[in-house]
Amino acid sequence: MGTVTVWNENVHEMRDPVVAERYPDGIHGAIAAGLAADGFEVQTATLQDAQHGLTDDVLAETDVLVWWSHCANDEVSDEVAERVVERVQAGMGFVPLHSGKNSKPFTRLMGTTCDIKYRHGGETERVWVVDPGHPIADGLPESFEVPETEMYGEPYDVPEPDQTVFVSWFEGGEVFRSGLCYRRGRGRIFAFRPGHEAYPIFFQDEIRQVLCNAVEWAAPTQGAEAVYGEVKPQTDPDGGY
Amino acid sequence: MGTVTVWNENVHEMRDPVVAERYPDGIHGAIAAGLAADGFEVQTATLQDAQHGLTDDVLAETDVLVWWSHCANDEVSDEVAERVVERVQAGMGFVPLHSGKNSKPFTRLMGTTCDIKYRHGGETERVWVVDPGHPIADGLPESFEVPETEMYGEPYDVPEPDQTVFVSWFEGGEVFRSGLCYRRGRGRIFAFRPGHEAYPIFFQDEIRQVLCNAVEWAAPTQGAEAVYGEVKPQTDPDGGY
Amino acid sequence: MGTVTVWNENVHEMRDPVVAERYPDGIHGAIAAGLAADGFEVQTATLQDAQHGLTDDVLAETDVLVWWSHCANDEVSDEVAERVVERVQAGMGFVPLHSGKNSKPFTRLMGTTCDIKYRHGGETERVWVVDPGHPIADGLPESFEVPETEMYGEPYDVPEPDQTVFVSWFEGGEVFRSGLCYRRGRGRIFAFRPGHEAYPIFFQDEIRQVLCNAVEWAAPTQGAEAVYGEVKPQTDPDGGY
Amino acid sequence: MGTVTVWNENVHEMRDPVVAERYPDGIHGAIAAGLAADGFEVQTATLQDAQHGLTDDVLAETDVLVWWSHCANDEVSDEVAERVVERVQAGMGFVPLHSGKNSKPFTRLMGTTCDIKYRHGGETERVWVVDPGHPIADGLPESFEVPETEMYGEPYDVPEPDQTVFVSWFEGGEVFRSGLCYRRGRGRIFAFRPGHEAYPIFFQDEIRQVLCNAVEWAAPTQGAEAVYGEVKPQTDPDGGY
Repeated sequence: MGTVTVWNENVHEMRDPVVAERYPDGIHGAIAAGLAADGFEVQTATLQDAQHGLTDDVLAETDVLVWWSHCANDEVSDEVAERVVERVQAGMGFVPLHSGKNSKPFTRLMGTTCDIKYRHGGETERVWVVDPGHPIADGLPESFEVPETEMYGEPYDVPEPDQTVFVSWFEGGEVFRSGLCYRRGRGRIFAFRPGHEAYPIFFQDEIRQVLCNAVEWAAPTQGAEAVYGEVKPQTDPDGGY
Repeated sequence: MGTVTVWNENVHEMRDPVVAERYPDGIHGAIAAGLAADGFEVQTATLQDAQHGLTDDVLAETDVLVWWSHCANDEVSDEVAERVVERVQAGMGFVPLHSGKNSKPFTRLMGTTCDIKYRHGGETERVWVVDPGHPIADGLPESFEVPETEMYGEPYDVPEPDQTVFVSWFEGGEVFRSGLCYRRGRGRIFAFRPGHEAYPIFFQDEIRQVLCNAVEWAAPTQGAEAVYGEVKPQTDPDGGY
Repeated sequence: MGTVTVWNENVHEMRDPVVAERYPDGIHGAIAAGLAADGFEVQTATLQDAQHGLTDDVLAETDVLVWWSHCANDEVSDEVAERVVERVQAGMGFVPLHSGKNSKPFTRLMGTTCDIKYRHGGETERVWVVDPGHPIADGLPESFEVPETEMYGEPYDVPEPDQTVFVSWFEGGEVFRSGLCYRRGRGRIFAFRPGHEAYPIFFQDEIRQVLCNAVEWAAPTQGAEAVYGEVKPQTDPDGGY
Repeated sequence: MGTVTVWNENVHEMRDPVVAERYPDGIHGAIAAGLAADGFEVQTATLQDAQHGLTDDVLAETDVLVWWSHCANDEVSDEVAERVVERVQAGMGFVPLHSGKNSKPFTRLMGTTCDIKYRHGGETERVWVVDPGHPIADGLPESFEVPETEMYGEPYDVPEPDQTVFVSWFEGGEVFRSGLCYRRGRGRIFAFRPGHEAYPIFFQDEIRQVLCNAVEWAAPTQGAEAVYGEVKPQTDPDGGY
């Protein structure tokens, strides 16, 4: 497969020394390193880049876009968001992480609010594989723990997913469908919950495994020809009605 | 159930004498009459009304919004479109007809282009029930003919539907998934293909039966409480982490 | 709607004094009382009845079959199981509870093993509504607790459901998709997890609410005509090829 | 990927000289040749072999089972059918063709009657790609014609599919969902309609392309660990309740 682009708003890292220390190369750097270690060709882009680093050229060469965002979802321009949406519809894979669920591209692709409940404080999450035959679960144990994280709780206002791969259990009593598959047009979308900026989640082995699997799964396939617009009848191509 | 609002762009009727003769009370009038005859409480609204007739008050009292549009999809204001989307997410049923598939509310709820192929000319469509146990098919024969219509052909660029109720056969060699069910948030959506302005389709018995069934199916239900935002733990509501 | 039949293997109640005291009228009696209190016309049947109480006549007049079973799933005759399956395919609603997931009718309708993990011991379950707009969640709080129960944990080997209505959290660290909707033929199926014989779960208000909602949801609808077998062409009914 | 096993009841070929001439190496031979030409490792098995050629050993080494059957569906032993079902649940891909929809393994995996309507006579089928982004459609035109075939018409009594890849149009006025994806357990299933014994359908390029794509798509993936049965709590592995 081709290039994976890891996009990060890169705001917490610049403002908060704790996050900067946790992710010295940015969250995008940590994610990219995990993917590169597995052999993927990876590049990164951030909110601060011109056009957020997501020009037509970059998107055209991107097979899968991994997206981390949180506090700056509203700062993404409508134009770039729309460009991402159109590229997904045309076949690019899209893997929004954590609060990337609130990003403009994801909410536009879902058509719902993507609302959740949440709680800060660093409690334990246990991520359960509920679809052990799914390729995004390749090589995983039946469950794994994220020792400290922000809690996300149901209801999660998204359309009924094509497949539910993971469901998370939280120490405080909540559950969350934390790995969901969708398709929009020719594009594959995998929304993955874990990944708060304050914890070293993107250095965790199981998380890196999930991201490699997700990128592999979301890569475009050739597909069939598709013709839209006005057409002649099949039964009499030279005629009409 | 409560009020059904039938919305029509009402443009062809004003410009084209053939359409005006075909639908002397407008397409909205014909649809509303069919629903009223079945006992529904119905009101109508059109593009030309202030706020297209879809004010907060009108939407608040609307249980199901039936939507016909074609040539004026772009003339619907973004503000009204967004208001419809939010009301669907909050529970209002939504039944886009014919080119209502290209309307702003429907494409925003789907997250896809909703592109199709098409052909004018008045050929025959045979609508097949592929899910005979579905309530939207209540009381229908296994198939019925629309004698003259515009053709819509696959691929239809929409997300995989929750249920496919109807698939149409066209004289010229095409097929189309012509009755599709979705949910977004608390709202139920039924996209129904038939209904070109040049043919008396909304006076046809089977079409009227489908619309009555669809409105019944799409009506809001009570549902459960839903809490979003920051919350205390279930396991220790007074404490935290 | 018509008659609801509540079926129970009725074995624990006969063997175990604790269960007999907990459910003096049997589990079927407790479930039937909850439904009757909500206005449904209810009858009961058990494994010990001739043909397990599920004769052709009983099934023909049954709109929805609620099914509780656990230790005696293998004692249900293949003939009766097949009869139930065929009646579901023809439109009867089916609501398997607890280990009814291992019953012959449910596993035949699913085509999977329906395997789970489990633990006895009476720990706490919190049932979360993940689809607050679904009619089976009508009138419920966003979550409710079952104070003591047997744990069921993922993975739950069932086909991807049409809708996931409930997901449960367990004190011991597991999660479970505890309310799942399916359709087979014209029949609606709702598999609901709670309900161990050792705890007074079927006297709990929220559980009774769910069962009333589920029975309402699973009731048959009229649907459309369906013709199977050899047919003449639509385009030339008198001719052929 | 590993071995593809092509199974054929091989009855028409033995009884009917027209079929024998059409498929001199059997339908299984024609299908196997098409797959082998694309680089797959292929073996064949037929109803007449001991255990229908589907022993534990054969199934254990089979990654994808392609299945053609028609008039002898009832002659497949329950034991072999059950073995195939269990192997699919454990991960083997399964591709039933034509009346393989009535085979014991497929109907058991679906939990429905799989009934259809049909007509003999050699009319034209046009197979439309309705999901152009699906890998089973890789490299196909937007539609292709099967010049002469048996008609299958809706309603097709199967569960709502995970994805609908193809819908067929028939000269006589019917439509059919002719390429449907399912999963049961870890196994992927693709039910494909075309392929009557009297016509050279399995020599047609587009059909061969679909079968190669389907086999590739249905191949097992590694997946995650899955633990079933009685377990200790995650929160206190040494304790209990």
